[in-house]
Amino acid sequence: MIGIFDSGVGGMTVARAIETLCPGFPLIYLGDLARSPYGSKSPAMITEYSHRNTEFLLRQGAKLIVIACNSAASTASTFLHSHYAQTLIDVICPAVNQATEISKTGRIGIIGTRATINSGQYERRLRDVRPDCRVYSQACPLLVPLVEEGWLKRRETKMIVKQYLRPLRDKQIDTLILGCTHYPLLKKVIAPRIGRKVHIIDSSVAVAQHLKSLLEKDDQLRADLYDPETPSRFFVSDIPSPVHALAAAIFGRTVTLEKTDV
Amino acid sequence: MIGIFDSGVGGMTVARAIETLCPGFPLIYLGDLARSPYGSKSPAMITEYSHRNTEFLLRQGAKLIVIACNSAASTASTFLHSHYAQTLIDVICPAVNQATEISKTGRIGIIGTRATINSGQYERRLRDVRPDCRVYSQACPLLVPLVEEGWLKRRETKMIVKQYLRPLRDKQIDTLILGCTHYPLLKKVIAPRIGRKVHIIDSSVAVAQHLKSLLEKDDQLRADLYDPETPSRFFVSDIPSPVHALAAAIFGRTVTLEKTDV
Repeated sequence: MIGIFDSGVGGMTVARAIETLCPGFPLIYLGDLARSPYGSKSPAMITEYSHRNTEFLLRQGAKLIVIACNSAASTASTFLHSHYAQTLIDVICPAVNQATEISKTGRIGIIGTRATINSGQYERRLRDVRPDCRVYSQACPLLVPLVEEGWLKRRETKMIVKQYLRPLRDKQIDTLILGCTHYPLLKKVIAPRIGRKVHIIDSSVAVAQHLKSLLEKDDQLRADLYDPETPSRFFVSDIPSPVHALAAAIFGRTVTLEKTDV
Repeated sequence: MIGIFDSGVGGMTVARAIETLCPGFPLIYLGDLARSPYGSKSPAMITEYSHRNTEFLLRQGAKLIVIACNSAASTASTFLHSHYAQTLIDVICPAVNQATEISKTGRIGIIGTRATINSGQYERRLRDVRPDCRVYSQACPLLVPLVEEGWLKRRETKMIVKQYLRPLRDKQIDTLILGCTHYPLLKKVIAPRIGRKVHIIDSSVAVAQHLKSLLEKDDQLRADLYDPETPSRFFVSDIPSPVHALAAAIFGRTVTLEKTDV
């Protein structure tokens, strides 16, 4: 099974993209709603939670782990890569690779939670792949609460998005990475405000595309994970009342959420 | 010592009010930042966390517990009152008593997190004290993130507050309870938008005033808790980078935060 974890249900954008691009590969999802959001917590705390989530998914039989949460991937992936022999994929590298390929001017913007932006991971990895690029990043801490409220088209949301994007617009970026799994839900608000000509990279889709090409190349991995008879499972560490509706909105269909302690 | 817990640093508005009104009574504060916010979590989860927080404060020597978090007081205080013989005070009752005394028309509004409003605790307790009152409540889930961002005077904040308050304004309330420890920081935005004639009850100040009168009446409690030589201590279960500035802004002076596992 393919294990996926996120601090909440935002990572279901990743699960949904993987289900669409890689049918027949059962998923095991964990949303750590008892401790969400991660984006406002310290790196040490996020690393500890990510460690627990990975252990949970391995116990459940995951053979590959996808870190769907940008905050976790930014602050904990070095620790996780060094502690686990299993193949571990995070949402950052595929988005970084796409951005460096697509950008013509090398002026790349990133938006994310405070934890993601403060980690500097996107900037570091972008410069590793393409040393000449100029990277501009902007923390947007209010966007996750706005998405979770379902305020996707409200005037206030548009104003807040415009304010957050202004510094990136001023820097004339030609490519913008949505460095948080919640942000694709605001893509229609973001696109006109950053400028129609700016390429938008959705880290959720990028990681699913990367996984698809990995499965196409690696026969052993494909054989280990392909199992169209086994259904996907969705675990959460807490079930607050609005979560079913939010999960259905993000995943595009009703999903059965199973409560678990992590 | 007087134990105080909250999901984060918002409860420091309560600690500050107690320090001002009850000098010489050392405080032991716990902000559960590793799991904050509570307002979006399930009642079962909030109860479990509140239980742990209470145990921590008792182990540290607290003789009286103040539940500073409205979300915890709304969903967990019944459990806590039934499990602990210690005197337990929560932020709800004092605000309820003040509101029912002050209101002339009996039309009382409450704003709070989703957990607080969904619990129906304020409504129930208001009707217990004054059966003829009409209670109107409104969940305002975006206000905590806005306060934590420091967006106290921004245009977007004013617009969002106005939207949240409109239904309460339409109901012509004459008294509004700020049912979340973060909201006093928005009092200047809230007051003109709900109407200058509406009495605003700050649950943080109300609980401190209640505690003061309790200490004046109960000589034994006063003797147990008065200890001007012992300094107050402030514990948090996580220390994300912006917390020091936020704590200082809320508390009105620099406080030393000690990291602890709960």
